[in-house]
Amino acid sequence: MVLARLLPEVEGGRFPAKREAGETVEIEAHAFTDGHDLLAVRLHHRRAGGGSWQTTPMDPLGNDRYGAAFLVERLGEYEYTADARLDRYRTWAAGLAKKADAGQDVRVDLLVGAALLEEAAARAGGRPAALLAGWAAQLGGEAGVEERVALAARADVAEAMDAAFDPADLVEYGRVLPLAVDRPRARFSTWYEMFPRSASPAPGRPGTLRDCAARLPYVAGMGFDVLYLPPIHPIGRTHRKGRNNAVRAAADDPGSPWAIGGAEGGHKAVHPALGTLDDFAYLVREAAAHGMEVALDVAFQCSPDHPYVRDHPEWFRRRPDGSVQYAENPPKKYEDIYPFDFESPAWRALWDELLSIFTFWIGHGVRAFRVDNPHTKPFAFWEWLIAEVRRDHPDVIFLSEAFTRPKVMYRLAQLGFTQSYTYFAWRNHGREIREYFEELSRPPVSDFFRPNLWPNTPDILTEQLQTGGRGAFMARLVLAATLGASYGIYGPAFELGLHRPRSAGSEEYVDSEKYEVRHWDLEAPGSLAAFIARVNRARRQNPALQADRGLVFHPCDNERLLCYSKATAGAANVVITAVNLDPRRRQAGWVALDLEALGLEADETFQVHDVLTDARYPWRGPRNYVELDPEVVPAHVFVVRRQTPDGLFA
Amino acid sequence: MVLARLLPEVEGGRFPAKREAGETVEIEAHAFTDGHDLLAVRLHHRRAGGGSWQTTPMDPLGNDRYGAAFLVERLGEYEYTADARLDRYRTWAAGLAKKADAGQDVRVDLLVGAALLEEAAARAGGRPAALLAGWAAQLGGEAGVEERVALAARADVAEAMDAAFDPADLVEYGRVLPLAVDRPRARFSTWYEMFPRSASPAPGRPGTLRDCAARLPYVAGMGFDVLYLPPIHPIGRTHRKGRNNAVRAAADDPGSPWAIGGAEGGHKAVHPALGTLDDFAYLVREAAAHGMEVALDVAFQCSPDHPYVRDHPEWFRRRPDGSVQYAENPPKKYEDIYPFDFESPAWRALWDELLSIFTFWIGHGVRAFRVDNPHTKPFAFWEWLIAEVRRDHPDVIFLSEAFTRPKVMYRLAQLGFTQSYTYFAWRNHGREIREYFEELSRPPVSDFFRPNLWPNTPDILTEQLQTGGRGAFMARLVLAATLGASYGIYGPAFELGLHRPRSAGSEEYVDSEKYEVRHWDLEAPGSLAAFIARVNRARRQNPALQADRGLVFHPCDNERLLCYSKATAGAANVVITAVNLDPRRRQAGWVALDLEALGLEADETFQVHDVLTDARYPWRGPRNYVELDPEVVPAHVFVVRRQTPDGLFA
Repeated sequence: MVLARLLPEVEGGRFPAKREAGETVEIEAHAFTDGHDLLAVRLHHRRAGGGSWQTTPMDPLGNDRYGAAFLVERLGEYEYTADARLDRYRTWAAGLAKKADAGQDVRVDLLVGAALLEEAAARAGGRPAALLAGWAAQLGGEAGVEERVALAARADVAEAMDAAFDPADLVEYGRVLPLAVDRPRARFSTWYEMFPRSASPAPGRPGTLRDCAARLPYVAGMGFDVLYLPPIHPIGRTHRKGRNNAVRAAADDPGSPWAIGGAEGGHKAVHPALGTLDDFAYLVREAAAHGMEVALDVAFQCSPDHPYVRDHPEWFRRRPDGSVQYAENPPKKYEDIYPFDFESPAWRALWDELLSIFTFWIGHGVRAFRVDNPHTKPFAFWEWLIAEVRRDHPDVIFLSEAFTRPKVMYRLAQLGFTQSYTYFAWRNHGREIREYFEELSRPPVSDFFRPNLWPNTPDILTEQLQTGGRGAFMARLVLAATLGASYGIYGPAFELGLHRPRSAGSEEYVDSEKYEVRHWDLEAPGSLAAFIARVNRARRQNPALQADRGLVFHPCDNERLLCYSKATAGAANVVITAVNLDPRRRQAGWVALDLEALGLEADETFQVHDVLTDARYPWRGPRNYVELDPEVVPAHVFVVRRQTPDGLFA
Repeated sequence: MVLARLLPEVEGGRFPAKREAGETVEIEAHAFTDGHDLLAVRLHHRRAGGGSWQTTPMDPLGNDRYGAAFLVERLGEYEYTADARLDRYRTWAAGLAKKADAGQDVRVDLLVGAALLEEAAARAGGRPAALLAGWAAQLGGEAGVEERVALAARADVAEAMDAAFDPADLVEYGRVLPLAVDRPRARFSTWYEMFPRSASPAPGRPGTLRDCAARLPYVAGMGFDVLYLPPIHPIGRTHRKGRNNAVRAAADDPGSPWAIGGAEGGHKAVHPALGTLDDFAYLVREAAAHGMEVALDVAFQCSPDHPYVRDHPEWFRRRPDGSVQYAENPPKKYEDIYPFDFESPAWRALWDELLSIFTFWIGHGVRAFRVDNPHTKPFAFWEWLIAEVRRDHPDVIFLSEAFTRPKVMYRLAQLGFTQSYTYFAWRNHGREIREYFEELSRPPVSDFFRPNLWPNTPDILTEQLQTGGRGAFMARLVLAATLGASYGIYGPAFELGLHRPRSAGSEEYVDSEKYEVRHWDLEAPGSLAAFIARVNRARRQNPALQADRGLVFHPCDNERLLCYSKATAGAANVVITAVNLDPRRRQAGWVALDLEALGLEADETFQVHDVLTDARYPWRGPRNYVELDPEVVPAHVFVVRRQTPDGLFA
């Protein structure tokens, strides 16, 4: 007998699978044996770290697969394992029933069953032993064959045999697998990134955290639930970069928020121009009042003026000439940035201090962090740090901002990052979008990697947004919001359609907020704010859009049209999205729906209700027509309405 | 640093991957690290069980994959593992080169490199230490910068640094993975099954092993290289089955060869009507003279008259009434067959005796066995038995005749079976053929499971062969012979087109050879022998058809046409097969070739040479027309001929 697989299992159980509180976790086992014996497979689960195991029989799903599920209600770690057993009694009972049904003489077979019960009685103690022995005597006794066959089929007899199984017939899975349970926002979140210093309503006056608070109704009104701020700390002056990343800053240039640390403090301080810790506390409270939370940017690096450089020179690497090693990516140099030396002999104190930065901001009400470039710090550091934080604060969300090679991005997610940036911004063609999101939305990747899709960031103004016009912005927003249960935009640059790069071939914005204070006219004509609000309302109203699982692509005879659906369990809620990937031209084509994935019958008439335009279309069967004009709306977000018995569509 | 994967790896290294002698085994590692350091990854391999490791540097393949290969020349087990190391020196040297190329001042960088060399010198001993120290002094010395930069780029310096690496920078894979090397026929074989007792040229006289020998020119002439015989042992009389599986045999009914054992002997005896052990030896020699070998059927079961039943009653299970337990699959009973009790207290002696059956026939020149219903015997038994046999006879081929659930069939292959029967006979539609053979021809399955495809067997006359006529036989033969590097037919039933079932809905042949002696007219008009010979000649002449790897399906706009190709490494030999799956009607359509898989340029004119008809067609680009008529030949087997510089196609 072989208990070959228990799923989900991430890297042989080295890392936890990820789920969210309130979810029913479905576990699958693969078990089989030589011969034709039936198996009894059981799932055992509990909260990690002790306590009693709860045992659930696993149901055969066909093809030697067995399934069971349990509800996770609390945050933190659970664990599970399984065992499988030759079910000699039910195997015998099933054979007996078939023979009896075929009218065969089963008197000798009844004696075989009686022997099984006697052996079990010998293993069992007390009352069960007596019961089993009694049944054995009846099976092998003088009663009529029909009566004895009926006894053999009784559930209570089989259950008593389950309890008295022969330990030699049992195999254990051999590994206990971990499961990390996060809060629901780990799965479904909608992020809005903005620079506080550009949040002032008054041109000429830099913005503050209080201005951010005043901006909350606008951001919440668009349907976002996470307000993410680039670093809010004091900014260094040495080697400060000027506007448009100029090597020398002018006297009044504010510098990059990622050159962290100055005379006013480091990672635990608020830039005086933005306000105070009290102002930050006010922003956190106001955000909560709008149903939002504040996410901070954690960039573990220092400007040359950071207090750490003076107080802890042992945390930085020295060059042979005695200077501190600045960041570099040869031949590029970043002399305004000093990386920490994670391998320094003083690493323990350094790691503890870095952990204390998280706990400091957690103490100020932050439960979500966007971590800058985690792939340039040691894997072991993140695994340790995230475990330390989550032990006391399992509600903390870590978003990994790593745009590096796939295996490294996946490993960071395995090490504990709750969500991860993706390659979404650079996936433009239908086939590459389909292949990438099929990979992300299915096991094994979907068990540990939660994508967070960004059509733009302060560092990423894609070629398509530069050249595609309003249609490209709308299409990319719909793709992000419907392909990803979590997505975000960098605003107001996004909703205002900023599209000019610093130079040809660059993905940097011209006059980027990274290096200067900007002022935004949120009321500018052409703002996509209302459109974004509609899209986010569709996300809130449709549970299918709140998970990455359940994504299915549907072929279309026009490759510029991309069609896909998401469905909740049992297809209770189904959303079909169709996007015109060509930002310039109207595109039309026939979609071939996978009706089974949509829970629809081949001949069923259903209604697709476009929640972006409120238009409704009657559809039927797999082939349906789609036509999308980027000058109007380049996408449909269709909720499937099925016909109710009274003939309406709901 | 993470060395995450080493491929092939079967079930975490629990079972060996399979390859064949003479093959270059390609190993792939997945390794990555945080940060931007270069890695040095090494493969270590050796013959299993000791000896020195051979070490090969693994080349970066992109996307954190590294590859290396080694040639396996001997049969038996090899093993391999890997390690990965931060290559601090090459990382530094690459950065230095970029900075120097950019015209930067690198004097401080040279001192960083000098320190690396000094640390290595301190780790190294003897002459390497002196060399490294000398280079360190030069790098940090007074020579010109250009000269010192050139020193840093020298291969001998990097190699000396390789040898003096810091053990703290190395991670080992942690597992040593097994590799089983079989003889080439394990991969590429062509089987012909026939009943010796029907091999007589004279109607009315049953055939013998000598008659089989006389049949060899015919079988070898069709291009087969394995002659597989159903059991050749004495047949029991108790509960003997009659013609067409009648419950009672007539006095002159010969019985089923799988009801093994009688007064004349058991599994180590030859049925007296077939001849003697000397006759068998003659057949083995004659087969070898025709480039063939003889495969025997091993069915571990006994007729009630088998000497084991009398001499070793402890090897059989008793029913409560004292009778021996016969085989059953409720409500079906097989009272002519006694299964062994592998869990008997006397199991050790039983297992040893069963092993001795293999060694007996190995002693009589047999190196290939078709094992009957292995899934009804314990997994542990097969793993033990095959390892025992292969220790002294690594050239033995075990063909698993299990038609059971996929996970069990795969597990038997993992336990050691060299080849396996498949579901091929029941895969008729294009999509199901494509999905099944994509699964079989790719890792992980292709690493341990070698399919052997049978369009028919004495137990399997498929509905398609019953109703499809000659076109169906030809199409199924071409599918088997080109989808599978190994395939077989049950003849002469196949080449003579036998298609009548015993009853409607049955896959049994009427008047099956399993229960009676038949006489065959091999010269009958309509025999497919010549066609089969052409197909098998194509297999011998084209290495692409001699492996299961390299299979690619090409879409066709007519779903009744199936098109696929196989190619050797570098597309040196490419065969495109197109089959009309409709045995009744001519079908035509346009194939969309995956030119990259075929090693062809988009605008290249090439020739497809049908080796079945010798017709040649000029093709160009991906879209090409195919038309196939089952009344003529329902398949093309095209060898791709590319244009040579002199304008010919070769």
